[in-house]
This record gives sequence, C-alpha cells and structure tokens, in this order.
Amino acid sequence: MSFSPLVDQLIQALRCLPGVGPKSAQRMALHLLENDRSGAKRVAESLEIAVEQVKHCERCRILSETPTCRICSDTRRDPSMLCVVESPADVIAIEQTALFKGYYFVLKGHLSPIDGIGPQEIGIDLLFARLKNSEVTEVIMAINSTVEGEATSYYIAQQLDGTQITLSRLAQGVPLGGELEYVDGGTLAHAFQGRQPVCG
Amino acid sequence: MSFSPLVDQLIQALRCLPGVGPKSAQRMALHLLENDRSGAKRVAESLEIAVEQVKHCERCRILSETPTCRICSDTRRDPSMLCVVESPADVIAIEQTALFKGYYFVLKGHLSPIDGIGPQEIGIDLLFARLKNSEVTEVIMAINSTVEGEATSYYIAQQLDGTQITLSRLAQGVPLGGELEYVDGGTLAHAFQGRQPVCG
Repeated sequence: MSFSPLVDQLIQALRCLPGVGPKSAQRMALHLLENDRSGAKRVAESLEIAVEQVKHCERCRILSETPTCRICSDTRRDPSMLCVVESPADVIAIEQTALFKGYYFVLKGHLSPIDGIGPQEIGIDLLFARLKNSEVTEVIMAINSTVEGEATSYYIAQQLDGTQITLSRLAQGVPLGGELEYVDGGTLAHAFQGRQPVCG
Repeated sequence: MSFSPLVDQLIQALRCLPGVGPKSAQRMALHLLENDRSGAKRVAESLEIAVEQVKHCERCRILSETPTCRICSDTRRDPSMLCVVESPADVIAIEQTALFKGYYFVLKGHLSPIDGIGPQEIGIDLLFARLKNSEVTEVIMAINSTVEGEATSYYIAQQLDGTQITLSRLAQGVPLGGELEYVDGGTLAHAFQGRQPVCG
C-alpha cells in the first residue's frame, strides 16, 4: 500500500533484486525519488543498455557484449589450462587473485537431478565440445564445495576418465587467517590429509 | 574489475541504492543478467516512468504523480487534523494502521543546524502557510523521537504558541509485545510518566 500507483509499481519491480524484500524495496524507491533522481536515471539507463547488449561469450559463456569476451580474446593467456566454474561471480573472484592465467568455462550452476537439472541444462555437453580438439591439457575444477558441486565435479571427472586431460581441483584446507578452534571438523580433516612439506 | 564494461557500469550504477555496497551491487547485476532479464527490464521501465512522472503533492508534499495526492484528494477525511511527519515512509507506516483519518504534511527530514539545515530547508514555512486560514484545529507531531526530531518538534511548537491550534505528539512508552527487561531506561521513564487508568 502506498499513495501513488507509479511508486507502488516501482516498489514491486525492485523486489526482483536478490535479497530485497518489501521493506527494502520501499526504502530504495523512496530514497531514489526523494534524494537521488539522477542516480535512478543512471540505474534505468545502465539496466536497459545491459539487458539489450550483454550476451554470453561464445567460448566461455561468461557475460559479454562482444561475441568473445575480454578474457577469451586475450592471446597472452595459457591455452593449456581451463578453469571450470559455476557462475560469472566465481570468475571475478578468481581474476581478482591475478594468479590464474588460463581460460575459463562457466557452467550454469550445478547438477541437481531432483530439480530436473541434468548435464545438458548446465552445459556440460558444451564443455566437452570445447575440450574436443583443443589445446587444453589440464582442467581445473573450481566448483563450489557443496554436495551438488561435488556431484558435478564427480560427473565431469568420470566423463573425462581415459582422455589425455589432467583433472585437478582447488585445495581444501584452513582459510587464510582462520583460527583452528573455529574451523569445522570436515575442513580440518581435509587440511590434515592435504598437509604439505614446510619449505625450510 | 569485471569482464564487461557494460556490466561494470551497471554494478557502479546500482551502488546508488541505499544499503548496497560493491559486493551486493555485483550480485544484483549478475543475477538480473543471468536469471531475470524481464525483471531487469521492468525495473528500468518503472524507474524511468517514476522519475519522469512522480512529483510532490502540492498540499502535503508527499510523492504523487497528480498535483494533489490520493490522500489530499479524499474529501471524506477530517480536515481539522494535520499530522506532521519527516518522510513519505512515515505516511505509509501510519496509513497502514488505518486509524488516522486526517491529512498529512511531509517535512524534508529534520532541523540540523550543524549541517546548515534550517526551517526553510525542511519546509516549515510551507507548513505554516498550509495552516494559515485552514480548518486545522489539531496538529499531531509524528516526528522521529531522536534528538534532532525533538528539536524540530520544539521549534514548531514554539512557532504555533499563541494560536488557536492544539499541538499533540505521539505517546511514548513500551512497544507492543516488548519485554520490560529489555526496554531502555528512558523509554520506561516515559511509560511511567504517561501511565493510563486500566479500564475495568
């Protein structure tokens, strides 16, 4: 309930944003209209342009306004390594480390048979098509360490079994700056199993 | 840092929303472009229409696409009561109680001399112009119970001193469902001072 149908409509529209309920949407709408109309215009314009022009990269399926994205167009990268992730946000996180210099492949989430999401729905067939006759020698699975993520990794590993491609996964262990006291048992067990020699 | 200038631009634009930092803005942008493009279009259209068409009501200064808002146009309301609030969100909150049947006047925030915000900046002169030669006999101050809010109420009360208009304020006391143990001392003191006879 509000006092203006257009404001109501805006509040309703803003609720499609992740993590935004009725109260936050109302706060956002009133803030934009009362205090920041130029900001509101910028949001509207950016959204419109992005929805119209941003598609998916043909090679890695990340969001991109050009047929192949910036990363895939960069010929200085190492074509022998391919990092498989669940979402574009994961690519941003990995790129921020500035450590990985290969290419990416973005799945659309993870396998979830109970929701009817199989290998084709998340694009595993496209991943294999990408690997076929390519220079890739190592596939790094940077998939979330959840039950569904593990299942997705396992499925891909099984399919690649017998090929020349090496399959690796991110190390599991204690996070940087983490206190052992507060680390869960499963993580600690992985950290013990994956212990590494101390460089003297 | 992202992979597409248009996505970067959208993330930057979304940061003007209240309570949205860089991480939330990125999450919102990726969610809209990956999973909900029709929702994104609706947001863009609603924002554009609202910014263009929603102005302020001439009488109460609430957001409205018509010269006088729905509430001010409703002749069944009681013209003898005027409720003064700090923001349109307060009007929505009061209207949801469905108890108050008078009209409203929306200030633009509260007095804050340290930030250079005086009576004119928040529109107290317009409030007095509204009261002059009107049918209003009671002004209800529904201003936030903060230090600045109290100062604003006090200023208005002083200006209306000597006129025929009765000035009232919202009752202060224990909130509904509140446990006494967790109510602060100031509130409890107000609740004691404002105690009321129990209807037998």
